[in-house]
Amino acid sequence: MFDQLFKDSEIEALVTDEAIIGAMLRFEAALAQAQADVGLIPAEQASLVARVCGAGRIEPQKIITLAKKAGNPAIPLVKELTALVGETDGEAARYVHAGATSQDVIDSATMLQLKAALLVLDNGLGRLQDRLVALADEHRGTVMIGRTLLQQARPISFGFKVAGWLDQLIRCRQRLRRVGSSATVLQFGGAVGTLAANGPRGLAVLSRLSERLELAEPVITWHTARDRLLEIAASLAMLAGCLHKIAIDAALLMQTEVGELVEAGDEGKGGSSAMPHKRNPIAPTMMIAACTRIPGLLATVAVSMVQEHERAVGHWHAEWGPLTEMLCLTGGAVQQANDLFSGLKIDAARMRENIEATRGLVYAEDVSLRLARYVGKPESDRVIKLACERAKQKGVHLREVLLQDPSVTKWLDQNALAPIFLPENALGLADELINRVLRLASQRPDPETKRA
Amino acid sequence: MFDQLFKDSEIEALVTDEAIIGAMLRFEAALAQAQADVGLIPAEQASLVARVCGAGRIEPQKIITLAKKAGNPAIPLVKELTALVGETDGEAARYVHAGATSQDVIDSATMLQLKAALLVLDNGLGRLQDRLVALADEHRGTVMIGRTLLQQARPISFGFKVAGWLDQLIRCRQRLRRVGSSATVLQFGGAVGTLAANGPRGLAVLSRLSERLELAEPVITWHTARDRLLEIAASLAMLAGCLHKIAIDAALLMQTEVGELVEAGDEGKGGSSAMPHKRNPIAPTMMIAACTRIPGLLATVAVSMVQEHERAVGHWHAEWGPLTEMLCLTGGAVQQANDLFSGLKIDAARMRENIEATRGLVYAEDVSLRLARYVGKPESDRVIKLACERAKQKGVHLREVLLQDPSVTKWLDQNALAPIFLPENALGLADELINRVLRLASQRPDPETKRA
Amino acid sequence: MFDQLFKDSEIEALVTDEAIIGAMLRFEAALAQAQADVGLIPAEQASLVARVCGAGRIEPQKIITLAKKAGNPAIPLVKELTALVGETDGEAARYVHAGATSQDVIDSATMLQLKAALLVLDNGLGRLQDRLVALADEHRGTVMIGRTLLQQARPISFGFKVAGWLDQLIRCRQRLRRVGSSATVLQFGGAVGTLAANGPRGLAVLSRLSERLELAEPVITWHTARDRLLEIAASLAMLAGCLHKIAIDAALLMQTEVGELVEAGDEGKGGSSAMPHKRNPIAPTMMIAACTRIPGLLATVAVSMVQEHERAVGHWHAEWGPLTEMLCLTGGAVQQANDLFSGLKIDAARMRENIEATRGLVYAEDVSLRLARYVGKPESDRVIKLACERAKQKGVHLREVLLQDPSVTKWLDQNALAPIFLPENALGLADELINRVLRLASQRPDPETKRA
Amino acid sequence: MFDQLFKDSEIEALVTDEAIIGAMLRFEAALAQAQADVGLIPAEQASLVARVCGAGRIEPQKIITLAKKAGNPAIPLVKELTALVGETDGEAARYVHAGATSQDVIDSATMLQLKAALLVLDNGLGRLQDRLVALADEHRGTVMIGRTLLQQARPISFGFKVAGWLDQLIRCRQRLRRVGSSATVLQFGGAVGTLAANGPRGLAVLSRLSERLELAEPVITWHTARDRLLEIAASLAMLAGCLHKIAIDAALLMQTEVGELVEAGDEGKGGSSAMPHKRNPIAPTMMIAACTRIPGLLATVAVSMVQEHERAVGHWHAEWGPLTEMLCLTGGAVQQANDLFSGLKIDAARMRENIEATRGLVYAEDVSLRLARYVGKPESDRVIKLACERAKQKGVHLREVLLQDPSVTKWLDQNALAPIFLPENALGLADELINRVLRLASQRPDPETKRA
Repeated sequence: MFDQLFKDSEIEALVTDEAIIGAMLRFEAALAQAQADVGLIPAEQASLVARVCGAGRIEPQKIITLAKKAGNPAIPLVKELTALVGETDGEAARYVHAGATSQDVIDSATMLQLKAALLVLDNGLGRLQDRLVALADEHRGTVMIGRTLLQQARPISFGFKVAGWLDQLIRCRQRLRRVGSSATVLQFGGAVGTLAANGPRGLAVLSRLSERLELAEPVITWHTARDRLLEIAASLAMLAGCLHKIAIDAALLMQTEVGELVEAGDEGKGGSSAMPHKRNPIAPTMMIAACTRIPGLLATVAVSMVQEHERAVGHWHAEWGPLTEMLCLTGGAVQQANDLFSGLKIDAARMRENIEATRGLVYAEDVSLRLARYVGKPESDRVIKLACERAKQKGVHLREVLLQDPSVTKWLDQNALAPIFLPENALGLADELINRVLRLASQRPDPETKRA
Repeated sequence: MFDQLFKDSEIEALVTDEAIIGAMLRFEAALAQAQADVGLIPAEQASLVARVCGAGRIEPQKIITLAKKAGNPAIPLVKELTALVGETDGEAARYVHAGATSQDVIDSATMLQLKAALLVLDNGLGRLQDRLVALADEHRGTVMIGRTLLQQARPISFGFKVAGWLDQLIRCRQRLRRVGSSATVLQFGGAVGTLAANGPRGLAVLSRLSERLELAEPVITWHTARDRLLEIAASLAMLAGCLHKIAIDAALLMQTEVGELVEAGDEGKGGSSAMPHKRNPIAPTMMIAACTRIPGLLATVAVSMVQEHERAVGHWHAEWGPLTEMLCLTGGAVQQANDLFSGLKIDAARMRENIEATRGLVYAEDVSLRLARYVGKPESDRVIKLACERAKQKGVHLREVLLQDPSVTKWLDQNALAPIFLPENALGLADELINRVLRLASQRPDPETKRA
Repeated sequence: MFDQLFKDSEIEALVTDEAIIGAMLRFEAALAQAQADVGLIPAEQASLVARVCGAGRIEPQKIITLAKKAGNPAIPLVKELTALVGETDGEAARYVHAGATSQDVIDSATMLQLKAALLVLDNGLGRLQDRLVALADEHRGTVMIGRTLLQQARPISFGFKVAGWLDQLIRCRQRLRRVGSSATVLQFGGAVGTLAANGPRGLAVLSRLSERLELAEPVITWHTARDRLLEIAASLAMLAGCLHKIAIDAALLMQTEVGELVEAGDEGKGGSSAMPHKRNPIAPTMMIAACTRIPGLLATVAVSMVQEHERAVGHWHAEWGPLTEMLCLTGGAVQQANDLFSGLKIDAARMRENIEATRGLVYAEDVSLRLARYVGKPESDRVIKLACERAKQKGVHLREVLLQDPSVTKWLDQNALAPIFLPENALGLADELINRVLRLASQRPDPETKRA
Repeated sequence: MFDQLFKDSEIEALVTDEAIIGAMLRFEAALAQAQADVGLIPAEQASLVARVCGAGRIEPQKIITLAKKAGNPAIPLVKELTALVGETDGEAARYVHAGATSQDVIDSATMLQLKAALLVLDNGLGRLQDRLVALADEHRGTVMIGRTLLQQARPISFGFKVAGWLDQLIRCRQRLRRVGSSATVLQFGGAVGTLAANGPRGLAVLSRLSERLELAEPVITWHTARDRLLEIAASLAMLAGCLHKIAIDAALLMQTEVGELVEAGDEGKGGSSAMPHKRNPIAPTMMIAACTRIPGLLATVAVSMVQEHERAVGHWHAEWGPLTEMLCLTGGAVQQANDLFSGLKIDAARMRENIEATRGLVYAEDVSLRLARYVGKPESDRVIKLACERAKQKGVHLREVLLQDPSVTKWLDQNALAPIFLPENALGLADELINRVLRLASQRPDPETKRA
């Protein structure tokens, strides 16, 4: 229901039934050509096969209908392709799909799609990374309260919060780049994976076919060794977890009672059907909705890894849907994240105001650390905790309570206390930590992942 | 990818975006009429709203496009509907969607769809139940080997195996009928669930609206109390687990080395793209593929239950997709199961032959029990275990080994031993247990579930 | 790691290895007695078996160690029990475990444990229900803001919020009671489920054994028909989802910026290791931690349902852990919920204060509805939306903006507007809805579930 | 229930509550020393702290009890440690846990445990890899039938099957080594991650502490950026999927009707409580049971990634259990796999015999490919498919059918046909593919992973 609300349409277009039939034809074309490359079949006839594959004469919907009966789309596709090639050259028809099995075509086509979809994702992540880099830098001085267990804890800067998001996002992106090159592997093994129907030159075909399709070459057939698909799925799940965290943070900061972030929006965005005053957070909602569905899909891919013998009865087929869903949903979440940050309003004044909500309690650790220099940490903790209680009960500022407590003023006078209660002085090494993340962001992706 | 291979097309048609828009319009029509029923709005204008809802003038694709921006389809739908009603009667326009919130419309529409889809499922299950009843009865004398931990254990009948499937299926069907009536509940509460915008007659509207839509009436608004959706999802998952078990049993019995069941098929079904001799099991494969995806979706529905405050930021939206998937996939598995059993060939000769594969070892328990009458169970177990070892080593029939063992022949001679080695004598109470299940199957569904 | 933080210790005690060995012995005792009841074995010797089972002479740890080799604990237990009985009466030894298989013992013992654990859970839920009933009633007039998509929406009462929790909790409790009686079923079928080793009186044994163990009698052996375990697991997951929702609501209401709820606590509870001022919400944290683990476990139980042939190779064993975890974790969450509500402080003043945070915007729907009586809903929505924007921009109260807007004041003067801005007048039918839930809570559990 | 049946006891010992308290003390010791290293606190007093940490004076059970109230074990541990240090030197007490927060200690301790457990796992995997290398090499000539969709397809060798397992296992092991070094990262950030309580030398402390604990140094605090934990969990899940596949293959090959593998076992292993002749497969059962539980746990770790703000309310706590379970269960599966392969009996005769079960049908593809050289693939497929049908119907060997079919014998006579029906000639490039895997296995682990 209304799945297109949550999915990336560019990625969806890459994983339609039509698109997979296109990718399957790409495999069949490259297979004939690779076999010609190593002298297994005549070049001319390989070219014919490739031409027919590229000519758009195969009607996807017909294949899809026949697939229901056959149990997979490869069987009717190969039949159709063979017939079409045979119309021109009966001899060439016998070179169609030679030495391959259904799963070779479908797995390789899946890998071509995954690789293309991961590239779309990477582009979206590149834009998101750039936006977060700018925000982290720009808001290194925008003080706000840090929150732990949903309680105000002590000040941070908004730039520091963004840097934390960014650090995780960079890792997630790097993993996707890595699997985009190392885990998108050619499948080609024939009926039981032994390349038995390719004669002694089978390994040469394998190698050429990998090059032609720009998929990594496997050491051995992996019809029932599916770890790489779980690796890709898990990398998507890490990204989804990262985006989900950002979305939750944003939604919480957009709460009426917090109000530190506001989503940009034009007419019709975020309105309520009943309440004229409301502005609902749309992008975080859509991100949360999309990412919530990922862990279950990940579990399905993990369950599906268990494929018996040389080719499996059902678990292979069970992988297709969840992987496609994961790509479309994480893609949708990346799109929404880009939307969110492209116009996000940061209310620095409200951030500063919220720091004051506890009347100084959020500086308790800083006062305690300072006092501990003189009286030791246990004693200092005890004194400050009491002062905090008193401040809460009386509803006065912690600073005022402290200034009336001789066990404090003996060591710290007004002049010593005042600067402790400024948020700018409470940021610790936030700035240096931001810089470390920005340096990481500016590094070129590691060579291993360049191929992606 | 190729999801239509695994899904029930009749159910899919019930849960499209178009169908949900239809169900939403049904809600809006019934709402206006219910409000007229209790005197809240004029009957004539309620009729106009209902007429416009039913007139097919709203273009689903337009609503879908606008939904992306609004975050849900209710907002643009209400806007469009209001405009259309307003074209005829400006006064009537203000009664459109009165007192309702987006989630009221969408949740109720979802419930209408769920109820309709559960009915389709129930019909398919009815056919399947009838087929299994016939098989269990027909094959109560068809002896086969029972298997535990994938080892031959001792004889059963094929009818007994089917009765075991049937017993579970009946329970799963009953649960779906029960949730089809008790868990498909109207949603109607307004912005925060208090029916605040309906005036004092809100509860009367609630009641009439339930009746008009034939959905159960809730005690209180359940915008963020989603247990019923998990209950429905879990009932689907139990059915899927039941069908998955049947599919695995069938696929294992279809193994070349077992060959006790063969799937019926015409040309093009189950062929291999590489191996001309092969006939792959199609229905079990498709059933396994569909059912494998259910537990992950179930987990997602469970995660989505956690919806904060009065209406949730994302988890509500996350439910839609998984629930729809679960309906379509279990529906597809029911369809495939009906296909499987409509033409299944049972090879009774092969079943009998396989019982003999161990040369009598599968009767070891029976011999041991008989011997125990004379020598006690521990001693009997010891003697028979040894005899089994000897039979295995020498490759001779257990009966022959026993006949040469004085510690056996002292108590049991050839005449006593021979009938123990007939499968018909080893079935225990299989027949009575089948009868118990057939009696259960013949009971009318309990009254509680009639409404479903 | 630190699992006991999250688990109910009373339930944990019920599901230890020792406890399951106790339950297995209870089965073996009842089996011998049931067989004596129907005249299958001598009463005296049945009594001996029962006496040895109850005598505590079997050392659990020894069984556990041997189980590792045997693959399950039933085999060494039966061996040990047989030996012990044999010490007294060699004849009686042969009646130990007669006609049963390992899975009969373990499944029935599991069911005994589940039933006992569900009873502990029900007691905890009874206390929780009582507490929520009192809170809903007591706080029906405690106004607070309702929140949707984490934005302030319009007023509700705290009692109304609690009633929503309660309604769901009652349903979850009823489901657990229902499965506690209908799904806790005896297992007794022998090696392949045919009761072959019990002679013609097998069904009578089945029946007597059910009565003796107070477990429901199955229609047919269910060694590989595991839907009931998923049904129990799903019922636990619904409860967990319900408690998780309550915990999230509580944690959000405890936010520093919201401050409407405060967890009671003594010294040492909720303190921070670094920040002396902090009071972390402990019960909600523990509840969330426990409940977050449930959906994944539920998925595992669903996956494990797929058990091939007459007894399964691995999936049966895979059920034990997750079911136990689910019981202990939901039990822990119930305990924490009881802790939470036993001392929860409700800050009614802060609740009222927060309603005013938007300067009247949360009454926008009410004003709009009132104005719509004169100008129609679309026009009214337009006017009020504009007024809301103006109020936000200028930072003044919505009431003031409206009083300066002639398109409003033409229909509504100060006297008409003032009462709309009182939260008490904005609660709609909250009170009636609370009453409906309280009536539901006061009903006795339905007869079907009395046995639980 | 009986969880120790499925878990690795060496890993379990590493992740007990006691062990985590040990690891937490290791962190506190190293923290004081690192702070001394950079001149933040006196070396002598740092030594005292380290000494007390190592002295075993802290009673784990006491900490565990207090943890329940505090919500985590760090708070009581620090209190206790501070008190013990204070007994000797009041001044030193204030340096305990300085600048750290609870989550710093617990996360770092968790990472120390994960790293240690991954090492145990790697050792077990090393032994398993060696065993599989030997089997693949030894059995490269042991012909058996390859099976697809549970149907006999065409011959492979047992060595080839093992090489497929091995290839996947090597990748899974490499991933675990990689995450063992790159994803086991120090946590140290203080209350909100800004290192605010460590003064300007905080980054130097971070760096020294990483070195001392041999954990990777993070770029920025990752209190709520949990991707690495999901990465570790996913790597475990890939391994589990790999082992599960091996176990299923083994269990299927051990079926009575297949009988190609037999598990070694001594007295008491794999016996049945009811059937004296049975030998159940123990190691595959235990492996399946353990691995079936992994995907659900993986989903939980994925869900738990979503941690709001600077430290999370519940999802952090939810990670501990599942990660620990995953380690113990995959460890148990590795142990069982080593058991399985240490004494596995391969019945080469039965393997060869099973190839003949279809009377030559499994050579259909080979005959078809040969015939296609003369008549083209479509015609050849047609002819051979017909011959297969005839062979099945008449129950005669495919070779005999072919020898009586002029459309075959026109091109292929007895001499040409005979060698096609030898399994040794049907293995394709199985041998070369085995060699590729063995070369991979002989490579030293890549430098990146050496640190692990």
